[in-house]
Amino acid sequence: MKFYDCSIAPSPRRVRVFMAEKGLEIPTQQVDLRNGEQFADWFRELNPKCVVPVLVLDDGTPLCEITAICRYLEELHPEPPLLGVDARDRAIVEMWQRRVELDGLMAVAEAFRNATPAFAERAMPGPRKMAQIPELAARGRERFGWFMDDLNARLADSEFVAGPRYTIADISAMVAIDFAGWIKVTIPESCGDLRRWHEAVSARPSAKA
Amino acid sequence: MKFYDCSIAPSPRRVRVFMAEKGLEIPTQQVDLRNGEQFADWFRELNPKCVVPVLVLDDGTPLCEITAICRYLEELHPEPPLLGVDARDRAIVEMWQRRVELDGLMAVAEAFRNATPAFAERAMPGPRKMAQIPELAARGRERFGWFMDDLNARLADSEFVAGPRYTIADISAMVAIDFAGWIKVTIPESCGDLRRWHEAVSARPSAKA
Repeated sequence: MKFYDCSIAPSPRRVRVFMAEKGLEIPTQQVDLRNGEQFADWFRELNPKCVVPVLVLDDGTPLCEITAICRYLEELHPEPPLLGVDARDRAIVEMWQRRVELDGLMAVAEAFRNATPAFAERAMPGPRKMAQIPELAARGRERFGWFMDDLNARLADSEFVAGPRYTIADISAMVAIDFAGWIKVTIPESCGDLRRWHEAVSARPSAKA
Repeated sequence: MKFYDCSIAPSPRRVRVFMAEKGLEIPTQQVDLRNGEQFADWFRELNPKCVVPVLVLDDGTPLCEITAICRYLEELHPEPPLLGVDARDRAIVEMWQRRVELDGLMAVAEAFRNATPAFAERAMPGPRKMAQIPELAARGRERFGWFMDDLNARLADSEFVAGPRYTIADISAMVAIDFAGWIKVTIPESCGDLRRWHEAVSARPSAKA
């Protein structure tokens, strides 16, 4: 297998933390997003969406999309389980993972991509040009504030995002909070449970991945 | 188990088709989205995001998010498999499912929600007010056109969206195409493979669900 990564980017970090939690080391090649290497022909053949991460399987199949890669790695290396431990738990993990993605990660991405000069014609990842929408940047910021409030309320009742165990939903939420630093947003004082949780997950060795 | 549905809405239809493919019949209660029943206290307790579908498990746990519900049903009722048949296949199905959601379903939702008068302060689902962004409606339309082109290219090489078998990715893509009818978009003549596929999946008995 071979992992196509970009060490500065939030999306592949979600997979790097996942691999670190499982103690996996997979040969890795950096893709230079800053200089547009994701648009090079060789990479576009691996992923026509022109985004990292990509995991190329031993049979040459390029596997794209973060959760698809994580699901594959979980099946090959079930311990420790990061996608849930039984049918009910796996469904609950998926529910929280989706909420974190839609309300957290996508909100920051909207805020960042639609307001950062370097992404002037790249308001969404991918090979096609797309103009920024300043109102969407503002809405993303507002949505991210709601996300932190909601997650804080959840974490008042639950040690981790999806329940009593650390899961992929914690990885996604940690990356969302850290990604929000790019738009100069940090956890407000009012969100004490979110702070407690963020400190705990950030102290795990995997967080450095 | 009990399924909270709205027979006119695209999101719960994804689960209804999934259940129909497996021959499942689950007691169902309609939620009257047209009259705002999703914001009633009783429903908000099941799903604070105020959206259908919700599957309430036998132990009373409300399971929200379409793919979480489908994953749970797949584990309980593995035949026929709609999420893939082995580790590699499951990952590939998840990859295509994600692409269909991001590029297809979300594009139509953006176009529809940000331009329809009845959704004036509800540009996204959920309990919080959100103003429409007309530019986002236009971008959603453009993105959906790209989605159809890309899916047409995929279907030139593959009988179904995720490979040689009908999967959840076909359900999501069919619902995306049908949902696009709400914004008066249909498959263009140029997309012959997409038309061939859409006719085939629409002819399955499950499509009526």
